[in-house]
Amino acid sequence: MKRTLSLIFALSFSVLFVHAQDIKVEPPFWYAKMPTEKLQISLHGEELALWRVSVNTPGITLVNQLAGDSENYLFINLTISPDVAPGKIDIDLRKGKKHKKISYELKERSIDSNRNLGFSSEDVIYLLMPDRFANGNPENDTIEGMLEPARRDDPSGRHGGDLKGVQEQLDYIKELGMTAVWLTPVFENDQTPEYKGYHGYAATDMYKVDRRFGSNEEFVAFVQACHDKGLKVIMDMIHNHIGDQHWWMKDLPFKNWVHDQSVYGNTSYRGSVASDPYASKYDEDKLIKGWFVNEMPDLDQRNPVLADYLIQNTLWWIEYSGVDGIRMDTYVYPYKEYMARWAKEVIEAYPNFNIVGESWVENVASESYWQEDKAGEDDGYNSHLPSVTDFQIHFAVRDAFNSDFGWESGIMKLYYALSQDRLYSDPMKNVIFLDNHDIGRIFSTLGENPDNLKMAYAYLLTTRGIPQVYYGTELAFKQGPGEWGDGAKRAEMPGGWAGDERSVFTKEGRTAAENDMFDYVKKITNWRKSSKAIHEGKLLHFLPTDNVYVYFRYTDNERVMVIMNMNDKPMTISRKKHIEMLRGFSAAEDVMNGASIDISKDFQVPAKRTTVLQFK
Amino acid sequence: MKRTLSLIFALSFSVLFVHAQDIKVEPPFWYAKMPTEKLQISLHGEELALWRVSVNTPGITLVNQLAGDSENYLFINLTISPDVAPGKIDIDLRKGKKHKKISYELKERSIDSNRNLGFSSEDVIYLLMPDRFANGNPENDTIEGMLEPARRDDPSGRHGGDLKGVQEQLDYIKELGMTAVWLTPVFENDQTPEYKGYHGYAATDMYKVDRRFGSNEEFVAFVQACHDKGLKVIMDMIHNHIGDQHWWMKDLPFKNWVHDQSVYGNTSYRGSVASDPYASKYDEDKLIKGWFVNEMPDLDQRNPVLADYLIQNTLWWIEYSGVDGIRMDTYVYPYKEYMARWAKEVIEAYPNFNIVGESWVENVASESYWQEDKAGEDDGYNSHLPSVTDFQIHFAVRDAFNSDFGWESGIMKLYYALSQDRLYSDPMKNVIFLDNHDIGRIFSTLGENPDNLKMAYAYLLTTRGIPQVYYGTELAFKQGPGEWGDGAKRAEMPGGWAGDERSVFTKEGRTAAENDMFDYVKKITNWRKSSKAIHEGKLLHFLPTDNVYVYFRYTDNERVMVIMNMNDKPMTISRKKHIEMLRGFSAAEDVMNGASIDISKDFQVPAKRTTVLQFK
Repeated sequence: MKRTLSLIFALSFSVLFVHAQDIKVEPPFWYAKMPTEKLQISLHGEELALWRVSVNTPGITLVNQLAGDSENYLFINLTISPDVAPGKIDIDLRKGKKHKKISYELKERSIDSNRNLGFSSEDVIYLLMPDRFANGNPENDTIEGMLEPARRDDPSGRHGGDLKGVQEQLDYIKELGMTAVWLTPVFENDQTPEYKGYHGYAATDMYKVDRRFGSNEEFVAFVQACHDKGLKVIMDMIHNHIGDQHWWMKDLPFKNWVHDQSVYGNTSYRGSVASDPYASKYDEDKLIKGWFVNEMPDLDQRNPVLADYLIQNTLWWIEYSGVDGIRMDTYVYPYKEYMARWAKEVIEAYPNFNIVGESWVENVASESYWQEDKAGEDDGYNSHLPSVTDFQIHFAVRDAFNSDFGWESGIMKLYYALSQDRLYSDPMKNVIFLDNHDIGRIFSTLGENPDNLKMAYAYLLTTRGIPQVYYGTELAFKQGPGEWGDGAKRAEMPGGWAGDERSVFTKEGRTAAENDMFDYVKKITNWRKSSKAIHEGKLLHFLPTDNVYVYFRYTDNERVMVIMNMNDKPMTISRKKHIEMLRGFSAAEDVMNGASIDISKDFQVPAKRTTVLQFK
Repeated sequence: MKRTLSLIFALSFSVLFVHAQDIKVEPPFWYAKMPTEKLQISLHGEELALWRVSVNTPGITLVNQLAGDSENYLFINLTISPDVAPGKIDIDLRKGKKHKKISYELKERSIDSNRNLGFSSEDVIYLLMPDRFANGNPENDTIEGMLEPARRDDPSGRHGGDLKGVQEQLDYIKELGMTAVWLTPVFENDQTPEYKGYHGYAATDMYKVDRRFGSNEEFVAFVQACHDKGLKVIMDMIHNHIGDQHWWMKDLPFKNWVHDQSVYGNTSYRGSVASDPYASKYDEDKLIKGWFVNEMPDLDQRNPVLADYLIQNTLWWIEYSGVDGIRMDTYVYPYKEYMARWAKEVIEAYPNFNIVGESWVENVASESYWQEDKAGEDDGYNSHLPSVTDFQIHFAVRDAFNSDFGWESGIMKLYYALSQDRLYSDPMKNVIFLDNHDIGRIFSTLGENPDNLKMAYAYLLTTRGIPQVYYGTELAFKQGPGEWGDGAKRAEMPGGWAGDERSVFTKEGRTAAENDMFDYVKKITNWRKSSKAIHEGKLLHFLPTDNVYVYFRYTDNERVMVIMNMNDKPMTISRKKHIEMLRGFSAAEDVMNGASIDISKDFQVPAKRTTVLQFK
């Protein structure tokens, strides 16, 4: 009876619908039959906190309504039965005799199976910055009403790259052998020209793509285009902070929405504090409550309304865009209990999904703390985070090529990094990289020696983990001139802008050196695609001796031998020493050049080269 | 009936006793009512393997007799009922009509409660080398029939120090505030003069004290003398290897008693292999089966007779000598399953006992692997080892004073070392040290700057763990001239030898600089004796800033603040920054000089000094 009545009401409301134009509603819409029945709708409008809500749609229960500390916010918590079909939810607001109606849309979920697929060690991730990759639509470089115009002459200014530009170059990324694309954040960053928000980490609206990159719809189309080409998409998110021009900052929903910078100052950037059993409260506060920079207010996820808002925002983007994974920025800076809840709820909602958290810390002990089901003293914490950004591999590569071979130096660095892997719950899920947008270009770090970079790439693409390549490093981009600031490591891709003298997106436009490096990476990545030994095989390594590091990746049926010869001369590889892995095999193919290698006896490997051998 | 008959036999045998002089019997005797009922007796004598054993003492069961691969060995496994009183076990050997008897003694266990007490973070351990500390008995420097004579002019030769010498200087050790003495091994090392076995790590008889140090009885008396002065004794043992002049080597009991050096060569010394999830069999074999040096045959503890022999040898020394703890050499080199069994059985037999294993590895991940109930990937291994030698603290101190203050350098090294402590099952049980007999003298490593050494000592004696002081470093001994070989870091204590120009064992004999350092260490150690905050308190530290590292040790009732100011100028300590630990306290005493410090406001600490404040 009641149900029938409600249905009649719902129908009549939809007829009487008058949208309240003066109310900002978030999420802008939702989906029927979502993995969670919970929905929190944020309403922002003049004195909304004083209004009373009722919802009269069958299957929808109003759990409560929460007024903000600011009287202009009203948060409505609903439960949506899985029975509820796509359509409208009618939300009625009353204050005395006044009356407003919101017709809230529940869309139909996509049935495309090629969405939200996660990423794994089968993948190679291509990290790019949309502002710096390619400018597909010069019309959106500078947008009337947005604070920062495009300024290509400023290395740290906005250059005008966009989603359309990336989408036009997907064949380039595909040809390079990449299987996933990680874009730095696409959220609106309507920050001031002084701040320079081209990188995307200072969101001013978490439900909008920055219009200088494209519209929300263009982002969805971009993801679809990637999927059509067999490329996954990893979305970059930030729950630690927002931009100081975020619309919240003009009218904070709650007093404790962001931390008080006048009390905590800026963060120490010292992620190790969060896993340190001896950390002082002072240092914990600095890390967690300090602002990242003056222009990035630090969110206080202890506020349950904010926590719900952020988790829901994630679910919304996953469902809306179809992205396959998330890279969560500054994972170790927020309240770790919140981040764990977020990761858990996201993975529970999308079991095939994957998340990698940026865990920029200084040693394996700290790094491993952030992977789900961590080892070590039980402090009751479980991050529920499947993947971490394995900075330890980056440090090891950096140091391996910048110190002479010694007890713990040179190539030993690579051995020592991996020898601590027992601390990770699953090191195969670590995202590994030579460089990224926050680190100086690895080519320069490795002395701008192409042999070094090739050796490092071959390592990256054959050791355990999920490799990530930073755009431009496949072309041996050097660190830009001057200081190692943002701009110096985030150069444009030549050819991405109309009028560029050449295009690195074509073989003809690339220099010989660029083609050499591009082809090198392409060769391994494309071979890697069909190597089960690399995707899921075990790893076995030998202590480096004579400045040579040998390791194997293997399954029951496949065997790959990797030999990093750091010497300036060819070296002989002993069959006897490696017999435990060579037994039963007498021939191998050099993956880079197809040469047949007789491994039935001792054999030579070239100087300054990582030789990758596929056993036959 | 049977029992009565046996008793008659036993009595009659004891009357008929003829000791088989040509048989080497180990252990030389045993004890009644030991924690274990098992006893394995090793008999070595011509063609003994061909003889049949019977034992006719009530309460003693012959489990089996095992012939060696060499026909000159017979191993007898017995079970001894707890009912059996001290006395003799009559062992009857027969071969055809031939007949030998062994009357084996079961002694009475000591009831002295001041034995086998273990050691803990309440202690400070003094590590010394008996050959280098003091020569109490010049008569035993060179012993007729032993291979190596004393040669004081050779830095790596035998110098003649002995147990009597140490015993005569216990007041010195006591005055320094030490509570435990760790002697490098006292086992007979009857090695050739070419090898130079003064250090004790090349045992030639595991049941005998080297006569150049003293007799077995003198060792027991030494332990008793230590106990009488309130000093505990830690015995150094080695189960990884023996000396090549060990009597076994002339006639190996079993073919697999030692590893075949012609197959495995020498070890890699790379302990990290043992905890590396990716280690090759080749590297495991090198580590475990390779010899330590050519003169040290590597024991194969997979041989169950050898394993039983070694464990029993340990129990014998504990019971015989009354020592309080063991420092096990090269803990990570033998089969780790054997070492775990050894540690477990020793601690089960002597629950108050403690063992520290030498785990010289390169990072916290590897170090922590060796402590019982380790964290990390469950490979099914539990070392059962309570304490590890915390080389990571040594490395951190070394590097802290040898690099400028930076993100991960200088004093940050100390912060980073401890920030990984979650990996240890109990870091308070780690034995920490600035230097030891295998590491160059820390005073030289720290630039021979007394301020640096004092700062380091204050750190060592106030941070978590069980501090160990290396003899001579309390006098700021420098690294010897020339290469950093054995002799250079194992100098004699002046005054330990008759005719020495001066004696550092007296205030008058020490230089002003030596007294300054001695008094510094003495001051802290003696204060430390009554500090529950140091013994059992929690630790809380602050990220170093401005080249100053601040940490606290505290219980509910006590609070100690330690401030390491690495700067060449006084620094101001902010009350506000440290308020979480200062709240409720307004006065403190400087432990070093008794000065009262007003901590109710910001206060200053001197340049280049570790200030230790006891709150009042």
